[in-house]
Order: sequence, then structure tokens, then C-alpha cells
Amino acid sequence: MPTQEYRELCRLVREASTLGSVSSLLGWDQETYLPPKGVAARAEQQGLLAGITHERKTHPRVGELLAACEGEVGRVIEPGSPEAANIREMRRDYDLATKLPKDLVEEWATTTSKASEEWKHAREKSDFKRFAPWLGKVMDLARRKAACYGVPAGGEAYDALLNEYEPGITAREIERVFTPLKARLSDLIARVRASKAKVGTKVLSAKAPPDAQQGLGEFVLGAMGFDLQAGRLDTTTHPFCSGIAPGDTRLTTRYKGEKFTDALYGTMHEMGHGLYEQGLPKDGPHAGTPLAEAVSLGIHESQSRMWENFVGRGRPFWKWALPHVKKRLGPHAAALRKASVDDLFRAANTCTPSFIRVEADEGTYNLHVMIRFGIERGLMSGGLSVKDVPGAWNEAYRSSLGLKVPDDRRGCLQDVHWSFGLIGYFPTYTLGNLYAAQFWEAINKKIKDLPARLSKGDFAPLKKWLVTNIHAHGRRYRAAELCEKVTGRPLSADPLMRHLESRLGEVYGL
Amino acid sequence: MPTQEYRELCRLVREASTLGSVSSLLGWDQETYLPPKGVAARAEQQGLLAGITHERKTHPRVGELLAACEGEVGRVIEPGSPEAANIREMRRDYDLATKLPKDLVEEWATTTSKASEEWKHAREKSDFKRFAPWLGKVMDLARRKAACYGVPAGGEAYDALLNEYEPGITAREIERVFTPLKARLSDLIARVRASKAKVGTKVLSAKAPPDAQQGLGEFVLGAMGFDLQAGRLDTTTHPFCSGIAPGDTRLTTRYKGEKFTDALYGTMHEMGHGLYEQGLPKDGPHAGTPLAEAVSLGIHESQSRMWENFVGRGRPFWKWALPHVKKRLGPHAAALRKASVDDLFRAANTCTPSFIRVEADEGTYNLHVMIRFGIERGLMSGGLSVKDVPGAWNEAYRSSLGLKVPDDRRGCLQDVHWSFGLIGYFPTYTLGNLYAAQFWEAINKKIKDLPARLSKGDFAPLKKWLVTNIHAHGRRYRAAELCEKVTGRPLSADPLMRHLESRLGEVYGL
Repeated sequence: MPTQEYRELCRLVREASTLGSVSSLLGWDQETYLPPKGVAARAEQQGLLAGITHERKTHPRVGELLAACEGEVGRVIEPGSPEAANIREMRRDYDLATKLPKDLVEEWATTTSKASEEWKHAREKSDFKRFAPWLGKVMDLARRKAACYGVPAGGEAYDALLNEYEPGITAREIERVFTPLKARLSDLIARVRASKAKVGTKVLSAKAPPDAQQGLGEFVLGAMGFDLQAGRLDTTTHPFCSGIAPGDTRLTTRYKGEKFTDALYGTMHEMGHGLYEQGLPKDGPHAGTPLAEAVSLGIHESQSRMWENFVGRGRPFWKWALPHVKKRLGPHAAALRKASVDDLFRAANTCTPSFIRVEADEGTYNLHVMIRFGIERGLMSGGLSVKDVPGAWNEAYRSSLGLKVPDDRRGCLQDVHWSFGLIGYFPTYTLGNLYAAQFWEAINKKIKDLPARLSKGDFAPLKKWLVTNIHAHGRRYRAAELCEKVTGRPLSADPLMRHLESRLGEVYGL
Repeated sequence: MPTQEYRELCRLVREASTLGSVSSLLGWDQETYLPPKGVAARAEQQGLLAGITHERKTHPRVGELLAACEGEVGRVIEPGSPEAANIREMRRDYDLATKLPKDLVEEWATTTSKASEEWKHAREKSDFKRFAPWLGKVMDLARRKAACYGVPAGGEAYDALLNEYEPGITAREIERVFTPLKARLSDLIARVRASKAKVGTKVLSAKAPPDAQQGLGEFVLGAMGFDLQAGRLDTTTHPFCSGIAPGDTRLTTRYKGEKFTDALYGTMHEMGHGLYEQGLPKDGPHAGTPLAEAVSLGIHESQSRMWENFVGRGRPFWKWALPHVKKRLGPHAAALRKASVDDLFRAANTCTPSFIRVEADEGTYNLHVMIRFGIERGLMSGGLSVKDVPGAWNEAYRSSLGLKVPDDRRGCLQDVHWSFGLIGYFPTYTLGNLYAAQFWEAINKKIKDLPARLSKGDFAPLKKWLVTNIHAHGRRYRAAELCEKVTGRPLSADPLMRHLESRLGEVYGL
């Protein structure tokens, strides 16, 4: 039974969330339609809004109400109820917002803003020395931040940062899953490289005009259940999904790739995020509170990777999609016109070690992530110093992927994350793949004829399962608990490895 | 010399203005790209922002600082200085924001929201009876509002509402200009109707695709000096201009008209507003304060009408524009391909009484506005009752324009303004035409070879004159003072009549 304090708390939290949704729209507009000369005014708008939102999030009244509500759990609020979970999550948000002193927040904003500018120039010139002092500053701030958040007993400073993106997980827990994953992935990739099978991507070449690709994208979105009356698809330099507000989830993609699947899979990836946003109970009684928000970055990524890879690179998808793709892009793609489902399936699943994470295939992708995880964990603990990052990076690419990194642009300077201070963010990419694989096995156990349905373009049962088992819960369960609840098991490397071994085994005849 | 109080006052006002700019962006997005199902969340965002903005605008600290600054005028702040004018205008804004009690503001919002919904249905069915009770409620609220604002000594309640849109003007002052204008316009239109000249619009027919029309629009915007790096042109159901923020002025148009000039003149009209917004000193030391804002709706409209009508329907414009228009739209417009400058000039200046204000030509347009002015003034004073509006309307259209209004949809239900509570807004349309004409004469006196320059596509001197003499002042002078300062004379009907008599005289051989 919600108490008066609980209702007031929800109202205050919802107002802060509404202000956050305004910032999201401003962010989306900046990437899509903002005129170039409007950038300075946009920064002023965002700064002012951020200040007002922060004031509201950290208002003493929120703290009072939280304490009162926590006192009611076990009395008028049932432990384990949605309300109790909501109070737990509102406490988490309040603590994260209040634990950082103002001077650290300001120094953080200023330093990362400059560091990301420096990173741009350093990457362009492949000049790690230029970026090194900024990475040093960012790491110092990250350590101060971790100290403010507080390091969990028996844990490490890195855990305090991980907690921002993947609440409750620890580096040790990640290591427990990553270690066997790495060994088995390395073995699988070695077998792929030893295979005599010829797998090319020529059928994916298409110089289709953006209109035709946008038409295909919107057709696929509609078929998969993304509600275009409650969302949009626009183009930006870097694709993203923004779940701005109830009824307003916006995806972006880009049409500049060499292969038509670059945009198509990009769109399906963002759509996975978008379906999660549309599936959250944003209109219900807990609108604007944690119960209407996503669990974690890892769970969010599991949704995008599921639609991009588990669905999108599967044979059933191509059985359904190929005629539609031929109809829409065929006139612009000679090789595509004669292609078979098998050609597409194989071309979409090539596996080749490469330098750039965002262009990596499904098989080698996680090795990229694990390398970054190791390096940033070392930087946080002090086991690795900033000046030794390029060496450590290149050695890891040699031993993990068999590659000789030619320069830092294609090496340790390739990603923007560190310059923004996003330490602890990278592991969530692989956590997403792991969760996706484990959910995928559970789904296929439940929906026996899923492949047959997908090959007919019947995506509804899959979407329904995701909404019911993942989306509808919002933040009621933490990721680890949700995973056990849904799949009956703690997170493990096995499902992802079974998936990759089966798929690459088929493509490469292993 | 700005004092510390003055600087703090400007800072607070600027923050409220920045919040207002966020609301403007949300409004623009709602008309352009917001998914249909996002409307409810948008209303919540706007409501919350409006509340926060209002709190800041009416904060007691603003009142204290204003009083302190007013005490400094004549001591440390020079009377007549930009700072003194800014204090005068900030006082005006503060008073307007604080004079309405909260319950009236809320009732206003609720009633006009419902009234505008009812108006939509009533207009569709041409059912004035359905709208009448809502118009009654709106008028009651408008009278209460006027009472809160306070009726100036010797004035009427309507003046208090006019003041929201055209600061300082009175109904009597408007009447002084409208009365001779009406007499001379009626005479001119009668002579046009008696003329034997055949003037048609066939050359304007074009079924050009939106892309081609958008290309033409952006080309014209660029040539006339609208900075597309600091603005955009999108499509909406109802065209508008939103000067969102420094470096961010957005125009919209629509491409559904029968004539290609519908969109082209629509774009040029909004561009006139947009050039004003871009010309305001939004980046200067008074950013975010009244000195960086537009004077009034009438002055704003003078800028749009100048580019649309005084420039756009003139012979010099067509000398320059015709080859460009032919190149871009010619392939879609048979009649246009063979047309001469004279054909275009004449077609763009037909004069025919018609029912719908927004479709009216330059000659008859002001009669539409004057009819509404008379009716709403009568409603405010009580001289006219709501139930008698259709009768009064139809009689006015008969006597002024010689038309028999067939139904209320094409009569008193055609405009949305009253349902929104915009009483006192209509006269600013004609004030805009009057100011434009008076400015136009002053400009042509100053720039002797303006027609020759325009016919070569050299719009820079005109734009420069407008920026220097109108835009750069922001709200430093009230409209009447600005008009005298710039033209040496108080506002008069003469320049507009000279313009129309000359132009229609040429087209119709009068």
C-alpha cells in the first residue's frame, strides 16, 4: 500500500525525470537538426537544465522522504514488493547524486570536456603522448570519484565505477565469466583461421541511396514491432537510441557504409534498445521512477545485440528478409540480385580479427572488450601506468587477436570513452552479449518453433517474451537477479560460446 | 555604468529566457518531428518548464533588484541609456508576469485548451452554436485579465490586452490609423473591381516536388542573407518562425499550395521574421534580456511583410528571381517556362475579395483584420454579444468586401485566435503592414538605387538597413517611438496606401 510519503517521493523523482527527458530531447536535436551556430546556446540550455535537475535530485526533501519510506518497508510497504524495490533504487540514485562534492563534479565536467577535445586531435595524429597527460588527469578524477562513492568491502576501486553502469556487479564477478570466455573464444577463432572455407562479403556491397535504405529500415522496424507512431528513425554521424519520454523513442542510423548491412544492422541494433525503451512501463503508476527505467547498460545492450546478432545474423531472418531487401535495394546492388539465403547468412557471419572494435565481427568483438577491461582495471589499481598503455594494448592485440597494431589511432586511441571519463563502461558491451545469449537459450526453450516463426517474419512472440520477462520489470530486479529469474542460472560464458561455436561452425565448416 | 544589482538582475532574467528557449525548441519539435504518441509527455514537459520559468520570472528577488535598479536611474544609470530602457522593459515583463493571480492563469490554460479543441470541431461542422459558449468563457476571462493588468486612464479594457502584443498602443490610436485606411482601401478595391484589366494566376501553377521547392526556398533564403548555419527550413502544417536561441532560428513552410508562390512567399514571410531574430543582439552584453528581444508583434510582422510583399511581389524581385525559379521549377510547370517578368509581377498582385484572411491578397487583407478588430473590441466593451458575432461578421464582409459569407466555417469560425484567448492580437497584422510601408519609404529615400540592386539580387543594403535601424535596438524603443525615430513621422495610413495604389494601379491600369 503506497503511503503518502512514497507518493510524494515518486512525484519529486518523476519531475526530475521529466527534466531529464527535456535534456534528452536537446541532446537528440543537437545530433540531428541543430544549426551549427546554435551549439553554444545549446550548451547554455543544457548547463542550466542540468543544474536545476541536480538541485531537484539532491533536494533534502528527497532525502527525508527516502528515510521515511525506508522506515516503512517491512511495516506498511511489503519487502520484495515493487514499491520496496523502487525505494531501493531511488536510494541508489539519490546516493550517487549526492555523494560527489560539487567541486569534483565541476572539475570532472571541465576536464573531460577538454580531454575529449584533446583526444580528437591525438587520435587524428595518432599521437598518444598528446593524450597521455589527459588520460592521467581523468584517471586521477576517476579514483577520487570511486573514493567518494565508496569501495565495497573486499572489492576494488574499479567496482565503485562499474556500479554506475552495471549496478551491483564487481570486477571479480566479471573476471569469473570473462576468463573462460576468452580461452574458448581464442580457441574458436584459431579454428576459424585454420579453416579452408571461403566466406566473402561481396553480396553485401550496395550503393543504395539513403531514401531506399531508410525505407528498408522503417519496413524492418515496423515488422519487428517497433512503434513508429511512438518513435522515429533519423540519420546521425554516430548511431544511437534515445528513449526520450513515454511515446517518444528515437533511433538514428547512418547510410555511409560500404555494405548495406552496416546501416541495416545498425538500425536493428538501435531498435533493440528502442524496443526496450518502448517496453518499459513508462505510462503506468510508476511513470518517471526507477520502476519505469532500464536495469543496466549490460541488460540494455543485451536487447540491442539480440536483435542485431541473434535474430539479424541468423538464417531464419534472411529467409524472411531477403525478398524484401532485394525488392528495395536490388536495383542498386548487382551482387545482391542473384544472392541466396545461404550467401547472405554466410556473408553476415564472417570472422576476421581486426583493429577497430566497432567494426569487429560477432566472434572477435568480445576480445576487444576484454582487452580494454584489463587495461582500465590495471590503470585504476595502479598496476599499469598511463605511459605504458600503448605497449600493453599492442601486446594484448598480438596475443589475443594475432595482430600487429600499426599505430595508436588504430590502437589505444580508437575509442572516445576514456576521454569522457567512462571508466567501467566497456565491460557492459560483452555483458550485453552474454546476457543476450543466455536469454536467447531461454527463449528458444520456451518458444519451440521460434526459428520457423522468424523465417515467416513473425517476430511478435519474441517481442512479447522480451516485454514480459525483461522490459516490464523496469529496475525491479538487479541484472544478476533478473538473469537468474529468467534463465534459472547465474550469468555464464557457456550460452554465448554455444551460440558462436554453432554459428561459426556452420559457416566455416568446423 | 551597470551596477551590481543591474548585473544580477540581467543574470536572473537571462536564465528565465534560456528556459524559455528550451520551451521554444520543444514547441518547434512538436510541430516538426515529435512522434504522435509523444504528445502527452510533451505537454508534461512543457507544463513543468512553464512552472519553473514562471517561478523564476516572478521571484521576489527580481522585484527587489528591479526596485533597486529603478532607484539608480538618474543617479548611476543614465536616463535614456540602453540600461535604463532595459530596466523599463524588465519592469514591464515582471508586472505582466506577476499581475495575474495563479487561479486565473490556471483557468485560462484549461479553458483555452478546451476552447481550441471545441473550435476545431465547430469550424469543421460550421457550427457556431457549439463554439459560442466557449467564446463567452474566453471573453469573460479576457475581461478579468484586463482588470488584473489594469486599464490605462482614459482607455478601455481592450487596451490592457493590446498591450500584451503591442506594448503601449491603444485602441483609439489604432482607430486613428485604421479609419482613413479603410476608406481609402475600399475606394481602391472598388476601382480594381471596376477595371477591365485581365490579371490571372495561371503562370503560378506548378506541381513541383517538395525537394525542388525546398531547394528554391533555401536558395532564396541564402541570397537574401538568412544564415542557414544559424537556422533551418522545415515543413509543417502551419508555417511559422521560431527564434529559439542565439544561432538557432528555425523557419517552417508547406508545399501543398496550388501555386508555387504559396510556399515561396510563405518562406519569405517567415524569413522576414527570421532575419529579425538573427539581427537581434542576442550574443551581446544584453543577451537574454529585453534589449535582445523584438519590440512587438507589429514590428515583427513589418519585417515578414516587407520581405514577402514589398520585396517579394515587386518587379525588381522577379527580374532577379525568374531565371532561378524557371531553372528549379520549370521542369514541373509548363506555364512558368514561357512566362515573363511582367507575367509574374501581375500574377503575384491580383486583387480579389475573398473569405479567408490567410489566403487574402495584399490589397484586401487589411479589411479582414479591421473587421476582426471591430468585433473583438465590441465584445470586450460589451457593445456586441457573443450570439451576435456571426451576424456582425457577415454584415461587415458584405459592406467591406462585397461578399455574402456562405457559412461560419468561411466566416467567423475561420481563425484559431479567439479560442486561444488571443484578443488584441489581430490588429498587429495590419500594424505590421503599416510599419512595413512606412519603413519601406524611408529605406527607398536612403538607398536611392534599391530597385536596381534588388533586380540584381543584391539584398545586402536592405538587410543592413533593417539590422542597423530596427533589429539592433531590440526593445530599446517602443514601436511608436522607433517608427518616429526611423521615419521621422508617427504611424500613418499614407505610406501603405501610396504603396498599394501604385502597385495595383500599375497591375490594373487604374
